Amino acid sequence: MDYYLESLKMHEKNKGKISVESKVSVESYEDLSLAYTPGVSKPCLAIRDNEEDAYKYTSKGNMVAVVSDGSAVLGLGNIGGLASMPVMEGKAILFKEFGGVNAFPICLSTQSVDEIVNTVINIAPGFGGINLEDISAPRCFEVEKKLIEKLDIPVFHDDQHGTAIVTLAALINSLKVVNKDVSNVKVVINGAGAAGVAIAKLMDKFGVKEILLCDSKGIISKNRDDLSKYKIDILKLTNKNDISGNLEVALEDADVFVGVSVAGALKKEYIYTMAKHPIIFAMANPVPEIMPDEAIAAGAAIIGTGRSDFNNQINNVLVFPGIFKGALEIRAKKINEDMKIAAAVAIANIIDKDELDAEYIIPKIFDKRVVESVSQAVKDAALKTGENI
Amino acid sequence: MDYYLESLKMHEKNKGKISVESKVSVESYEDLSLAYTPGVSKPCLAIRDNEEDAYKYTSKGNMVAVVSDGSAVLGLGNIGGLASMPVMEGKAILFKEFGGVNAFPICLSTQSVDEIVNTVINIAPGFGGINLEDISAPRCFEVEKKLIEKLDIPVFHDDQHGTAIVTLAALINSLKVVNKDVSNVKVVINGAGAAGVAIAKLMDKFGVKEILLCDSKGIISKNRDDLSKYKIDILKLTNKNDISGNLEVALEDADVFVGVSVAGALKKEYIYTMAKHPIIFAMANPVPEIMPDEAIAAGAAIIGTGRSDFNNQINNVLVFPGIFKGALEIRAKKINEDMKIAAAVAIANIIDKDELDAEYIIPKIFDKRVVESVSQAVKDAALKTGENI
Repeated sequence: MDYYLESLKMHEKNKGKISVESKVSVESYEDLSLAYTPGVSKPCLAIRDNEEDAYKYTSKGNMVAVVSDGSAVLGLGNIGGLASMPVMEGKAILFKEFGGVNAFPICLSTQSVDEIVNTVINIAPGFGGINLEDISAPRCFEVEKKLIEKLDIPVFHDDQHGTAIVTLAALINSLKVVNKDVSNVKVVINGAGAAGVAIAKLMDKFGVKEILLCDSKGIISKNRDDLSKYKIDILKLTNKNDISGNLEVALEDADVFVGVSVAGALKKEYIYTMAKHPIIFAMANPVPEIMPDEAIAAGAAIIGTGRSDFNNQINNVLVFPGIFKGALEIRAKKINEDMKIAAAVAIANIIDKDELDAEYIIPKIFDKRVVESVSQAVKDAALKTGENI
Repeated sequence: MDYYLESLKMHEKNKGKISVESKVSVESYEDLSLAYTPGVSKPCLAIRDNEEDAYKYTSKGNMVAVVSDGSAVLGLGNIGGLASMPVMEGKAILFKEFGGVNAFPICLSTQSVDEIVNTVINIAPGFGGINLEDISAPRCFEVEKKLIEKLDIPVFHDDQHGTAIVTLAALINSLKVVNKDVSNVKVVINGAGAAGVAIAKLMDKFGVKEILLCDSKGIISKNRDDLSKYKIDILKLTNKNDISGNLEVALEDADVFVGVSVAGALKKEYIYTMAKHPIIFAMANPVPEIMPDEAIAAGAAIIGTGRSDFNNQINNVLVFPGIFKGALEIRAKKINEDMKIAAAVAIANIIDKDELDAEYIIPKIFDKRVVESVSQAVKDAALKTGENI
């Protein structure tokens, strides 16, 4: 099947993938009097007098904005907000189908950080949460930081945190399989964009002591004079031994390779020099940093990719529906680090000890247990950390 | 039935009135490959290379943003964007149920003209049209003007133009009933907010020669020194004989009273001095400028109100679903004056000559013929005026 041609046909046939539907009937004057004037003035006044009532009388509490400026779309690069629409509509339907969460695409005509921030603040009243999507680094960090400061609803950049959470889930189970402890492993992350930086931060928070982050020029280290502000910042958590060199150097004695970079970036020779039972997450899409058969041949103990046609698909559709479902249900003001880690642990724990093996370290994306488990864990963590107050 | 209490209950039970639904199924890896990655990259690239393809492959072409800052909501005044949500969700479901048009509420946290304009421009890519709603005058005029200048999709302030169009439709049929000609009638409009100004402009365009517009201080005339810029502007079309005085003075020998003001503003004595067969449109909501029985007793030939519990309900739900349906289907860049007049004529023409009488001058809002007739008329007018190019 030619997915590209069929996808085009399917999009044309349906004229997009989302519709807005009424939850109530409006077929009589009585219906109108309840759904619209004059009855509607009552919920309006209730909300005017108590903002929290918006969660009671409107769709706000279960409505997420999927916001993108189209600057870093899938493997397509900067195609702009309008051209990103099919992806954002796709994201919206995944929210609904996997999490029961209503989501609406907001595709922007601006790529200015301040304009994006102002625009999202201005439209925020109608939404219970903001999912930032496919906004390029380093602007995504700034956009997210400012929005988190200014809004009292969850703001979540999925390319960062969704990816980081699902990768951490994969790591947790992989370490069980190879019987290593998180505090003793060395992790090398290749790709220092939104995802790579977020993975480094979450793994640090989870207890990984040795992390090297590489960009296309090699290991990010103090000795380089070409680092942007956010790459300098990440040195607080990574490369504590101040190593310089390329990816090959980074991988010597590493336990884990995490690729959020480009097709073919991991050469099989590099795996030879890794520690015993190497764990490889080659998540470049659609072509991974190394193909699974090649990784296995080179000695990988575990290989995961972003693809559905191999085992161990590491995909953030395991994360965002459940994390927003939980955060919305408990009306969390933010999605904090504890909630993210709780989500990762919940995903990992879906797989029983006796089912767990090198070819099954992460649940299948259609596993219905995932969303409930993640949302419950997120709610528990939010309660524990007071994020719902 | 207590509509207020029941409305509150209904809103709470349903948690708002809208949901976002998927038009395609995502239950298998194959589904995902078409609706999302990798297949989705094909429509994205098509749109990147040709912006018009957004109408082919996304929901844009049948998606309207219902934008409000909540500054002039129904009879509630300035309650803010958040509290206006129940009204905007209501509007969205009317779009869908009456016109088959998807509509999504965008409730703003700002009431600054420039911020509203920038925000709407920034989120415009995903929408095929913008319906401005419940934004107070005179800011609404500026917001609409700037957006029409900057966007190439229809921008329509319903409180202005929806009301003007349905009022014109009511006028057209009322004049048939009393056998008067549009070029010979004197119309007095009471209320110089968004609706009053738009009604004056559209009636002028349609051929009414003598229009007086009154605000709470009386007739808008050159002799007043308290007029805002937009009230001075409207003097180009109204009060050509330069009359001063209050509403009572204005109504002497008037053929038509149009009330878009406040409950009880039209005293029955004023009707005595109007021309023969007075036409009264008392559209204040929920309590009209004069109650129908009182108007009839005072000699009104025709009385219309905004209410469903009386005959002749003059309600813009007769307008906006069809006008957007037509404009979207033909991909009009604007909704121009010819399209507005075509919509009014189409609404009026729904009623056959032999059905037409003083108690039936405007179709019932649930009359299914209206939306088709309006949208067809709007498309024809757009084609004729080149608004689709």
